[in-house]
Amino acid sequence: MPITMHSASVPMFVRMLTNLSKFIEKAEAHAAAKKFDPAVYLVARLAPDMLPFTRQVQIACDTAKFCIARLGGVDAPKHDDNEASLGDLKARIAKTIAFVQSVPAEQISGTEEKDINVPRRDGVLVMKGEAYLKHYATPNFYFHVTTAYALLRHNGVELGKSDFLAGL
Amino acid sequence: MPITMHSASVPMFVRMLTNLSKFIEKAEAHAAAKKFDPAVYLVARLAPDMLPFTRQVQIACDTAKFCIARLGGVDAPKHDDNEASLGDLKARIAKTIAFVQSVPAEQISGTEEKDINVPRRDGVLVMKGEAYLKHYATPNFYFHVTTAYALLRHNGVELGKSDFLAGL
Repeated sequence: MPITMHSASVPMFVRMLTNLSKFIEKAEAHAAAKKFDPAVYLVARLAPDMLPFTRQVQIACDTAKFCIARLGGVDAPKHDDNEASLGDLKARIAKTIAFVQSVPAEQISGTEEKDINVPRRDGVLVMKGEAYLKHYATPNFYFHVTTAYALLRHNGVELGKSDFLAGL
Repeated sequence: MPITMHSASVPMFVRMLTNLSKFIEKAEAHAAAKKFDPAVYLVARLAPDMLPFTRQVQIACDTAKFCIARLGGVDAPKHDDNEASLGDLKARIAKTIAFVQSVPAEQISGTEEKDINVPRRDGVLVMKGEAYLKHYATPNFYFHVTTAYALLRHNGVELGKSDFLAGL
């Protein structure tokens, strides 16, 4: 089967969001073992002017959600950024996985040349579907998943590359 | 044009390796402005049992190099892991970009079902070409590029998302 816009997007998002949820489970287990409040992870940052853990997870989710909504031509479900616990973040990830899996593959495949509009602070960025997937959504998604991983790793959670690549 | 194994791999690697080289230039400029030895970045780590900056860059390069060599059915050039400065790391990145661009697109396209063997400490991992690209090489590549970025950001270099997504 030739690679398609669907096969290059949804399985990647589902795999990595599933793994991200497992990173959070390991953080919960670590906090329980060390007897500290797991909520301390929510506000962890790698630099004072970088976004905290909660935002890293929310943006990873939204990057996947909006990518599939825009490519597939469907409305993205609204997810309020109101998560207040690691459990809430896992629920946000689960909702995101369910959404990206709900869009029929045939609506995503064939969108290589589709015009995609990405609203940004400084105006609307217009890209073709394939460029949007590979040069915008994919790097942005991995940026936030990896930063979430790095934040937990930096703060003592026992994670390794096998967690990051889990599912092989 | 439909997405292909070539269009989904080489342009992504070239874009992000180019950006990684620019992160390093910003680190050099930051060290010069603050009058410290830029070599301190080489050994920076986010956790004592995570790999240092030099290894993050080397592995990002090798992930791209081996991905294109394996998909394209060509021998990967040997790059010794002997970089001792930020300048050396930029040269390693440049060599990697030149290699991945040197493999003809038609040798990479159509490799979705090709058996790819990845030697690992615990044996050989065998995957089909598309799964290897999207579930192994791509996440591994972004893991190391993002961790390199995070290390510089954590250590004061002024980088932002526009550097990470540069080239749009």
